[in-house]
Amino acid sequence: MQLWHGGRLCTLAGDSGWGLIDDGALLVDGDTLRWVGPVAELPPEAAAAELIELDGALVTPGLVDCHTHLVYGGSRAHEFEQRLHGASYADIAKAGGGIRSTVAATRAASEPELLAAASKRARALMAEGVTTLEVKSGYGLDAATEARMLRVARQLQGLGLTVRTTYLAAHALPPEFADADDYIAAVCLWLPDLFEQGLVDGVDAFCEHIAFSPAQVARVFDAARRLGLPVKLHAEQLSDQGGAQLAAAHRALSCDHLEYLSPAGVQALAQAGTVAVLLPGAFYALRETQLPPIAALREAGVPIAIATDHNPGSSPTLSPLLMLNMACVLFRLTPEEALRGLTVNGARALGLADRGRLVAGQRADFCVWDGEHPRELAACFGHNPLKERVQQGLRGGA
Amino acid sequence: MQLWHGGRLCTLAGDSGWGLIDDGALLVDGDTLRWVGPVAELPPEAAAAELIELDGALVTPGLVDCHTHLVYGGSRAHEFEQRLHGASYADIAKAGGGIRSTVAATRAASEPELLAAASKRARALMAEGVTTLEVKSGYGLDAATEARMLRVARQLQGLGLTVRTTYLAAHALPPEFADADDYIAAVCLWLPDLFEQGLVDGVDAFCEHIAFSPAQVARVFDAARRLGLPVKLHAEQLSDQGGAQLAAAHRALSCDHLEYLSPAGVQALAQAGTVAVLLPGAFYALRETQLPPIAALREAGVPIAIATDHNPGSSPTLSPLLMLNMACVLFRLTPEEALRGLTVNGARALGLADRGRLVAGQRADFCVWDGEHPRELAACFGHNPLKERVQQGLRGGA
Ligand SMILES: [Zn+2]
Ligand SMILES: [Zn+2]
Repeated sequence: MQLWHGGRLCTLAGDSGWGLIDDGALLVDGDTLRWVGPVAELPPEAAAAELIELDGALVTPGLVDCHTHLVYGGSRAHEFEQRLHGASYADIAKAGGGIRSTVAATRAASEPELLAAASKRARALMAEGVTTLEVKSGYGLDAATEARMLRVARQLQGLGLTVRTTYLAAHALPPEFADADDYIAAVCLWLPDLFEQGLVDGVDAFCEHIAFSPAQVARVFDAARRLGLPVKLHAEQLSDQGGAQLAAAHRALSCDHLEYLSPAGVQALAQAGTVAVLLPGAFYALRETQLPPIAALREAGVPIAIATDHNPGSSPTLSPLLMLNMACVLFRLTPEEALRGLTVNGARALGLADRGRLVAGQRADFCVWDGEHPRELAACFGHNPLKERVQQGLRGGA
Repeated sequence: MQLWHGGRLCTLAGDSGWGLIDDGALLVDGDTLRWVGPVAELPPEAAAAELIELDGALVTPGLVDCHTHLVYGGSRAHEFEQRLHGASYADIAKAGGGIRSTVAATRAASEPELLAAASKRARALMAEGVTTLEVKSGYGLDAATEARMLRVARQLQGLGLTVRTTYLAAHALPPEFADADDYIAAVCLWLPDLFEQGLVDGVDAFCEHIAFSPAQVARVFDAARRLGLPVKLHAEQLSDQGGAQLAAAHRALSCDHLEYLSPAGVQALAQAGTVAVLLPGAFYALRETQLPPIAALREAGVPIAIATDHNPGSSPTLSPLLMLNMACVLFRLTPEEALRGLTVNGARALGLADRGRLVAGQRADFCVWDGEHPRELAACFGHNPLKERVQQGLRGGA
């Protein structure tokens, strides 16, 4: 056992508040938090544990990044530059750019190449405290490359974090299909085999006028249900498609983006217990002005998560801490809401109830920070005060 | 001598373009670049130099952060949180918050305390490639504390970077003065002594309806001129005060912020050769919507710099790379303009012509990055691909 002693704990216990314990301690037994509380109330078994002094440092739950597209080939930096020199999105698409260029580069990349690139990105996220990471497929759009992406995602676990994999073949229509319904049939056909290989923890789709219709998404969700897989949805990012209602009807773990979410959509999420995953990085990089309906989500009691949405086009960020700040500055979440979004509610968006709080019985996933109060993590931007990251009880360095 | 061999050099030679040399080398003699060019054209003396393989890595000039308020006591994270819980700026000011709380905390802090806090911040900037840093006073607002801030700023040079100090006593009216003109008299009175102590490289002021009038600023500038000190100005951030014209008339090195800069102000800067320093971090954090007149600045040929404006209130960021991205995303600079803003034009805003480009004769201040093209530095956000930082020829690690 390890006794982490004498820190300021931000436990996030309960449904609101920071859950601060000013002079606190954590007793870690294997990969689990055995006891969490004030130093003054240490249980007797603490005496035998290995002592690790926190010296007043701040401790929070490990960060959960519940929405990323971390595995891909190529770079879209040249498109970023072209747009700033005046090229339109249409110009770039005509020249083979946008998501199609990432699909081509991902198909062309070998598994070791994809793993090397994704490992660098995962290490950057870990360096800011991420202990659980979701990774989506969706740049292969064929059976072999989707499988390769998911295998690479799974291998990232070797770095010392939990990876949840999500099958997102219904991300875009690949060039070799003329008809979206035909492609959706293939998406549904490929899924059982990937699932049997242990590569799929959940199923996602992109419901939008530039992607797939609610009826097409429903077919993918039905295929997921036949395998007992939970679903999530890229919904109402550019327009209100009623995706939230569809997802809620399928008891989705989360709906993500949600800038154009309607009042009816808010109610559907609330009733289904579906998490609203907000992605301030994409909002920022796309210079979106339509805000997700934060006040309505709050009022309806919809749990809010935030994530990096790391992807090479619309959110090429590797900083969960910057997302905390952007959630506050751009979306007007409170610092506490933002941190819950990147911990306990991020975990919930992945169907994980065993992490995201510093409470006895939870997984021993936590971060030690150079700071006095958790609000500092959100108040600054472009900073990294991580001192140490612990995942499943293992000290990972910072 | 050192031979840095086989990298992609982004020299920024000339007035536009990246100045790329694909398979390039740098010959470093003491603290100076002796030769820069393609590997194929290495001069004979390279044979005797210590060889350092770049292995294809990207090399840019060292970053110059030409506008920071890096030395201060206290934190304003609680005010950030209060505002997100609905408190107005007026509420917070009434409770002693805002700049007054930083002034109180800075006055209460000892020199070692200020140095310890500022050193952490400077190290974070250095970890992203900063080799030259400007630091302003302005949270003391009395002779003793302004001197303490400037001494601390100077001591940061011990970390391995150049620090340029700027006297900004005309930042805000301190509580012990009822009359701004009386305070300006004191500001002018304190300056010569600080200058004689070698603590002042330049003089700045805040020209705004909530700070000081153009006439008051002119008195401070006159005091600077009597000592031969260059001036700069926080101008047109919240309203058009004609600060740019005033600064141009005093041959200011730079005017900073400039969201409300008028066409006449643009012309004045162009004619005086004054640099426009844009501060996207403050623009972002204050949720400003008035953009500085980028197109007019470009057309008039005003050199544009960008900087972190690190300060505890409106720009608590320690990421120059994030400023590159924000300059592109928020201000629509091109990646090349943004990088010039953080290198050669940042140096010019400090009156330094000996750095900011990879050209023979310049200081050997440069950064080695994990990347293929300099546009990648601006296209991503919340990332840090620095591999190594070299300042005055000394390898500083990353
Ligand atoms: Zn996504
Ligand atoms: Zn400033």
